[in-house]
Amino acid sequence: MTTSRMRAEIGEQPGALDRTIDGLLPRVPDVARLARDTRQVLFIARGSSDNAAVYGRYLAEARAGRLATLAAPSIATTYRRDLDLSGVLAVAISQSGKTEEIVQTLEWAARCGARTVAVTNGHGSPLAEAAEVALLTEAGDELAVPATKTYTTQLAALAVLGLGLGADVAGDDLRRVPDQVARLIEATEASDALPEIVAGLAGVPGAVVSGRGLAFGTALELALKLKEACYLHAMGLSYADLLHGPIAVVDERTPAILVAAGDGPTLPGTIALAERVRGAGAAAFGVGGGAGLAAASSAALAGPDLPEWVAPLGLIVPGQILVENLARALGLDPDVPRGLNKVTQTD
Amino acid sequence: MTTSRMRAEIGEQPGALDRTIDGLLPRVPDVARLARDTRQVLFIARGSSDNAAVYGRYLAEARAGRLATLAAPSIATTYRRDLDLSGVLAVAISQSGKTEEIVQTLEWAARCGARTVAVTNGHGSPLAEAAEVALLTEAGDELAVPATKTYTTQLAALAVLGLGLGADVAGDDLRRVPDQVARLIEATEASDALPEIVAGLAGVPGAVVSGRGLAFGTALELALKLKEACYLHAMGLSYADLLHGPIAVVDERTPAILVAAGDGPTLPGTIALAERVRGAGAAAFGVGGGAGLAAASSAALAGPDLPEWVAPLGLIVPGQILVENLARALGLDPDVPRGLNKVTQTD
Repeated sequence: MTTSRMRAEIGEQPGALDRTIDGLLPRVPDVARLARDTRQVLFIARGSSDNAAVYGRYLAEARAGRLATLAAPSIATTYRRDLDLSGVLAVAISQSGKTEEIVQTLEWAARCGARTVAVTNGHGSPLAEAAEVALLTEAGDELAVPATKTYTTQLAALAVLGLGLGADVAGDDLRRVPDQVARLIEATEASDALPEIVAGLAGVPGAVVSGRGLAFGTALELALKLKEACYLHAMGLSYADLLHGPIAVVDERTPAILVAAGDGPTLPGTIALAERVRGAGAAAFGVGGGAGLAAASSAALAGPDLPEWVAPLGLIVPGQILVENLARALGLDPDVPRGLNKVTQTD
Repeated sequence: MTTSRMRAEIGEQPGALDRTIDGLLPRVPDVARLARDTRQVLFIARGSSDNAAVYGRYLAEARAGRLATLAAPSIATTYRRDLDLSGVLAVAISQSGKTEEIVQTLEWAARCGARTVAVTNGHGSPLAEAAEVALLTEAGDELAVPATKTYTTQLAALAVLGLGLGADVAGDDLRRVPDQVARLIEATEASDALPEIVAGLAGVPGAVVSGRGLAFGTALELALKLKEACYLHAMGLSYADLLHGPIAVVDERTPAILVAAGDGPTLPGTIALAERVRGAGAAAFGVGGGAGLAAASSAALAGPDLPEWVAPLGLIVPGQILVENLARALGLDPDVPRGLNKVTQTD
């Protein structure tokens, strides 16, 4: 029987997403107004929030046609060097809104001429106070150390950011996310593939997690969760970076987990990668990617029935359930990984 | 006795660096002229070249005060979306200069309004032809699949790029690099710590490789080499990202390798991390970082006697020798990792 706090919080995502999307869709014009004076986006984040930023980055570039990249916070906090950030929309993402490094880097960005947005679950937090526009997520309290509902609600906020940047997508797709996530939780737990993939990952020294474009952040986030909750040496890599070297580590003891939306231009490459991984004698576990990726995989968990731009909000959910089940299968407490605290301070 | 092609090419680095630095220092004004019309740098690269770009990025930001970030090539090649890149200096890095994805992405950047630089060992290659300024490295032919002399000469070209961007450093420091690398090769092979670290990595399922700021690219490159030549599940992580989750994987079976220059603002944090890793019951192997990091480590390889901004040109060298020795200790051929070709094509 499932009793972890992490599992309970996974189940709270449909409600958290519904509240967050309701609260933030009316903020699209605020983002648009702030973005009008800028030509590019610079994300400031760490950990799971950094993986959310990778989604925001691809959404801004692929769908809003706006250059979007990730900041190196140490330039602000360790090297203490100012840059010319005029024309930059700086978007800082932090679950707690209290990580000093992130707050300081956003303040540095403003001092360097950037306009500022915060994405945080910390209502009234220093980060929310520091930004010109605060997109507050409505995840409620999250007690398990591995982020679940704070991560997916961050993605919802970044989808709203994308709409404010003028992404060529149907904003109404967002409204379908909470129901899709509820269905996915049920479908994943009922799937025969879940125990098969848990068994396939329980004894291995490591795994590769790969995805591309809009799904790349999902691969990074699933890899991070496998590291922090299951102590699995999971490498999150884009399709292209995997082929530039690390494909050498894939073998019969090192499975690959491949994530993709059910549509979009990165899907054919992901299916081809599953075939290549299996050709190397390794297991390829699919997450999402429709019937094509499922057919090419050793075992697969279905993804959401959502278009590519918003699919990442659901695509991580089968992965979260996989992580929670794998941690328990390994005799670990998914709620309290060793060495970690909920609010991470780095300098 | 050492007979691998990789070891021979490691030994060719002093000469390759000397020729490259000689050839490229006179190009500083060409870079400066091109950069004058731009306000930021966007690097385009994959694999080892991507790790070189991480060095270029920190050098441009920390020492030249110029925003510098990494491009997502799939926006150009898979999503086929144009961005406004006016005011951007696009710097594409490719050993061969023939990787189509990188050539296409540089052409895309030019079409989007960027000024263009190529860093490549492929004289007359499509990438060199496509750029306004080509910084050609003089590594000669590299036959082993793991990049060594093409990587360090790329760093030399990026140091020249940094000078062209107006970095507040003494360009003469570059002249000291070839001799420092020659000394490092000798010192590393004579070091008692080398067999100790090889033994410490030979039986483990994975390792963490960490560095920060200007040394972060070195950590990523060493992790990539350990993956591709030794099939070790090596995770390259910045100090801060390591503390945001993956620190959970560090235990008595998962050592950390920590790299740092002998000076600079990131050194105290790296030393503190070595202490924390050992406190968690894991081995901490130091590379560089002077007497402070050596004292905090379980075993350490000395780094170059070079200031932080140019230290990465030498800092990878003890790591290259470690990788080559570990591969042979594991019964692997470091020259020909499974699954890899010298010129990687991704779409």
